[in-house]
Amino acid sequence: MIAILKQGTTPEQTQHLVDWLKRMNLDVHISQGQEVTILGLIGDTSKVDMELLGSLDIVESVKRVSEPFKQVNRNFHPKDSIVEIGNAKIGGGYFSMIAGPCSVESEDQIIEVAQAVKDAGATILRGGAFKPRTSPYAFQGMGEDGLRLLFQAKKATGLPICTELMNIVHLDLFADVDVIQIGARNMQNFDLLKEVGKTKKPILLKRGLANTLQELLMSAEYIMSEGNPNVILCERGIRTYETYTRNTLDLSAVPVLHELTHLPVVVDPSHATGKASLVPSMAAAAAASGADGIMVEVHNNPSCALCDGAQSITPDQFADLSHRVQLIREAIR
Amino acid sequence: MIAILKQGTTPEQTQHLVDWLKRMNLDVHISQGQEVTILGLIGDTSKVDMELLGSLDIVESVKRVSEPFKQVNRNFHPKDSIVEIGNAKIGGGYFSMIAGPCSVESEDQIIEVAQAVKDAGATILRGGAFKPRTSPYAFQGMGEDGLRLLFQAKKATGLPICTELMNIVHLDLFADVDVIQIGARNMQNFDLLKEVGKTKKPILLKRGLANTLQELLMSAEYIMSEGNPNVILCERGIRTYETYTRNTLDLSAVPVLHELTHLPVVVDPSHATGKASLVPSMAAAAAASGADGIMVEVHNNPSCALCDGAQSITPDQFADLSHRVQLIREAIR
Amino acid sequence: MIAILKQGTTPEQTQHLVDWLKRMNLDVHISQGQEVTILGLIGDTSKVDMELLGSLDIVESVKRVSEPFKQVNRNFHPKDSIVEIGNAKIGGGYFSMIAGPCSVESEDQIIEVAQAVKDAGATILRGGAFKPRTSPYAFQGMGEDGLRLLFQAKKATGLPICTELMNIVHLDLFADVDVIQIGARNMQNFDLLKEVGKTKKPILLKRGLANTLQELLMSAEYIMSEGNPNVILCERGIRTYETYTRNTLDLSAVPVLHELTHLPVVVDPSHATGKASLVPSMAAAAAASGADGIMVEVHNNPSCALCDGAQSITPDQFADLSHRVQLIREAIR
Amino acid sequence: MIAILKQGTTPEQTQHLVDWLKRMNLDVHISQGQEVTILGLIGDTSKVDMELLGSLDIVESVKRVSEPFKQVNRNFHPKDSIVEIGNAKIGGGYFSMIAGPCSVESEDQIIEVAQAVKDAGATILRGGAFKPRTSPYAFQGMGEDGLRLLFQAKKATGLPICTELMNIVHLDLFADVDVIQIGARNMQNFDLLKEVGKTKKPILLKRGLANTLQELLMSAEYIMSEGNPNVILCERGIRTYETYTRNTLDLSAVPVLHELTHLPVVVDPSHATGKASLVPSMAAAAAASGADGIMVEVHNNPSCALCDGAQSITPDQFADLSHRVQLIREAIR
Repeated sequence: MIAILKQGTTPEQTQHLVDWLKRMNLDVHISQGQEVTILGLIGDTSKVDMELLGSLDIVESVKRVSEPFKQVNRNFHPKDSIVEIGNAKIGGGYFSMIAGPCSVESEDQIIEVAQAVKDAGATILRGGAFKPRTSPYAFQGMGEDGLRLLFQAKKATGLPICTELMNIVHLDLFADVDVIQIGARNMQNFDLLKEVGKTKKPILLKRGLANTLQELLMSAEYIMSEGNPNVILCERGIRTYETYTRNTLDLSAVPVLHELTHLPVVVDPSHATGKASLVPSMAAAAAASGADGIMVEVHNNPSCALCDGAQSITPDQFADLSHRVQLIREAIR
Repeated sequence: MIAILKQGTTPEQTQHLVDWLKRMNLDVHISQGQEVTILGLIGDTSKVDMELLGSLDIVESVKRVSEPFKQVNRNFHPKDSIVEIGNAKIGGGYFSMIAGPCSVESEDQIIEVAQAVKDAGATILRGGAFKPRTSPYAFQGMGEDGLRLLFQAKKATGLPICTELMNIVHLDLFADVDVIQIGARNMQNFDLLKEVGKTKKPILLKRGLANTLQELLMSAEYIMSEGNPNVILCERGIRTYETYTRNTLDLSAVPVLHELTHLPVVVDPSHATGKASLVPSMAAAAAASGADGIMVEVHNNPSCALCDGAQSITPDQFADLSHRVQLIREAIR
Repeated sequence: MIAILKQGTTPEQTQHLVDWLKRMNLDVHISQGQEVTILGLIGDTSKVDMELLGSLDIVESVKRVSEPFKQVNRNFHPKDSIVEIGNAKIGGGYFSMIAGPCSVESEDQIIEVAQAVKDAGATILRGGAFKPRTSPYAFQGMGEDGLRLLFQAKKATGLPICTELMNIVHLDLFADVDVIQIGARNMQNFDLLKEVGKTKKPILLKRGLANTLQELLMSAEYIMSEGNPNVILCERGIRTYETYTRNTLDLSAVPVLHELTHLPVVVDPSHATGKASLVPSMAAAAAASGADGIMVEVHNNPSCALCDGAQSITPDQFADLSHRVQLIREAIR
Repeated sequence: MIAILKQGTTPEQTQHLVDWLKRMNLDVHISQGQEVTILGLIGDTSKVDMELLGSLDIVESVKRVSEPFKQVNRNFHPKDSIVEIGNAKIGGGYFSMIAGPCSVESEDQIIEVAQAVKDAGATILRGGAFKPRTSPYAFQGMGEDGLRLLFQAKKATGLPICTELMNIVHLDLFADVDVIQIGARNMQNFDLLKEVGKTKKPILLKRGLANTLQELLMSAEYIMSEGNPNVILCERGIRTYETYTRNTLDLSAVPVLHELTHLPVVVDPSHATGKASLVPSMAAAAAASGADGIMVEVHNNPSCALCDGAQSITPDQFADLSHRVQLIREAIR
């Protein structure tokens, strides 16, 4: 870590600061330039509060030389991590399609969709049982009953299941869940991250609505620092001023995260765009960008043709998408 | 709620949609224009999923005529709500200064600061015991010990205390806390909102980093819908592209929220700006905008002059700020 | 256009508004619902100021049923437009690679790069002569001399050239330029748009830093409404809170624009990311998303290996990228 | 300027970079730390392209120690600048109210409004003659005729006038304009900035929709570097994800700009919020934040009560606002 001191800082002030830093068990290397004095902090700087340091009267700015994350850092773990979920693998050249309905609604629905997406190439079934909803009056998901239906779909199709955990006290109910999803709104629910870090289950960690990639990695670090290495990162769109799409898919997150971390990265084009018509092209783009997987909302509700325009695509559209993604993956190999 | 149908929608498709809406116990008023067909939905539309409806193939757009929030809505409760906290009141013409250190660090520190801010006009003491931190390696607050020190400061000064709750399982520890703060990162931790909604304690609900004012109101609605009317809203800056300040203080939130809701609104210029030098002018601006209170970080650490530049201001600066806020409140009366 | 009136609007107020609208040569269709009154405006609503209408005391909200753009609108021109530039074509299934250095620096440089990108598959040469720079003290481009060198490179290689126009008074100098680029900062320099609309030259219109897709289309409409149909739209990243990349590439712009307009859409991954290491994967993603072309910064400066890390890629990297883009285009055909 | 080199940089690479920097007439001070090598660049670094330098393979990051702006910099000009406009002064303790209609519409309108705002305390009249409009089909302002009407209003009331220049070729028409406004969309129209920099007229420079405060200062530097010291900065709201207000007023810009520059800062609450009901409280907040002036849209159109809800306020509302702003300015003195 580098601290650049302001012009006009007195030697006493500098010494005062150096003493304070040394009390944190850091070595301090002072470089006295003509215009400026620079302190190089050597040792475990992950505990230094950069904002506090940067806000001191005599400090012009502070700069990390090494990233604040460790276990997720590719520098310390150059090889791609591969997360195994039943027979599926994600990362290190393995690609997974995660597909299923937004919410579990009934036994027929979930088993039918599960079978359809499996036939089209999905290797993991997604479906919401506990749903985070902006309004307290909106459908909050089937809860425990929804989990039971997911377990039945798993039994029927052999697909491992991925579903969202919103509340620490529900963790026991998730014993047979294969991938625990931490939703965008909980990306910085640090106590929840710590709890799932104590399990060994694969965790799909979604990027928060307005979180930086570094913050996403710090949240992954919360999970890994508790002992769970099975973290999958998920780009699902960020909030911007553009209103045509629900969010703005930030696909550059894929190569950036691959530079910074060894963890696998999947992309969710359904939540990112909020429009079914945009999902296939964004899934194709995600595959071309080098993503390790794609997470797509698929429904199958012949009794309600009304839903056709939602952000969910049909099993047929998913089969097309899946085929195209496969071709692109071969093209970029 | 109004649904505008796309040009080219057939009468059968329209009827199909109308039937579906009627099954939700809504009356549907059809207005067939030359260019466009409009459906007026009458009844309890708070349960209608606007995004789903809007994404149907035949629907051009959906528009709420009434807001999706009820109990927080000024239309249904025209008079300002006044929240009482010990002897302090917020809202309906009553103004409160909430002040104290970012984190509780020691008995001496918290009692000293508490006495100082009380002398300068603060009516509520703030201080963090459980701290949300981006990094798992950063200081996470003193936890239960921090709460105990806050209770001592309350005993010593008589000031009611306000501190952040991050985890449902800690709720019992907060029995003697006067105002429970829900932090920006937990604004959409809906299970946490429901739990604090079951208490009768005043809840200070901070706006999330990238949440709209409507989302803030919906989160307040979560609390009120569980039976707790004592909600205080807090604007604390939003995330934008500007990097000079930590966040961008959105002061127009104050008059907007006053239009939409009867709940009191306080402003936190410390977190909004991240710089002590900007806190006094932004506190003054908040008072001029009509805020019902101000929440300011104040520290008192003569042994560590190093902290002078942080986002916290000193008790002396707070006394000045407090005086100026008082003058402005008189000017705009 | 639909105007939804507020509850409590009196018949007199409604009539007053209707009269005002009729004075604008609009027919008004009144739909009196139980909860709400809706006015349907029929006729040429493109001249109605939505913001003014929406801000009237009695108006709840205003909603366009048809888009405010006409000539760029795919509804009125369902077939893809194809823009021809020398032998190159963009749009309607034709794909073009536009490549070259950020700035023209010397005769050797521009001819060498031009030859290299041509060999690697580029069909249009880009290069800046007039450069928009944040600082008045930064290099502002070679100006007229830069244009002359571009013309020499065109003569030497046969590649048509694309370069930025910043100032109306320079238009005469651009007589032999093949594609006039309007930069992101000038996307809403309406007088400049009108001027280039009076030529018949292909115009590459870059999306502004924080402009919506609708605003981009309205700026294209400025050009087309003056008589020039040869507009190419360019997504080049938008400004968000994320600081790791220079901008955030919004690839969903490609399918969205293809839905809304018949104009071709190209993507500039160099300015969008600001990092050479991210350019190849984002170029691949752009091709997979269905873009009609890609615009990439390429330099060739063996005397200055220092520049290798910039947002520009080398001719060799460009040849690889070009090959991969080709494979992806075949895969998604 | 400080360049921090990446770990693993070889001595040859370092020397190569140092030689390159020295060719730019910079002295380079090398500080070889254990973890990291830091180069301190001494001399006129305002011409160094930070982005290029920062993107080199061997460079970890680059940090300016001094700001890139000079003439606008408070460090080099500690005293507040005062801009004189007729009898009005802005800055250095002088406060001005700039008020008037969005667009000049007729002689009666502009003279009536001018007289009304003068009576209520305004010292400068604003009014648009050339209007930047998103749509080519919207009213583009009265142009030259509008300027003539403004000159008549000036003659009738004695108020100096402020109006927007969009096009270099119109500059001659602005000879009798007292304050030339550069609009938000033209903040980085660098050729326009250079032209108005060659005059001595007061320039009101509005912050762009998504521009940082540093970019605003660099644009002011363009004007000053051409010889015109009479620059007034204007905060008018920035674009964010929040849709309730048209833009988000960033009031912290006022104290931040006062720290960084000696130029006066005015606030435009009308464009920032887009809603008349929010203008008075935001004007009050702007005054409390220390702004040097306020720019407000005021109309007076008794024949068209329809406009009452627009972002413009009435002369009566302006008189109230003006009185309140006066009281607040006395309170914070």
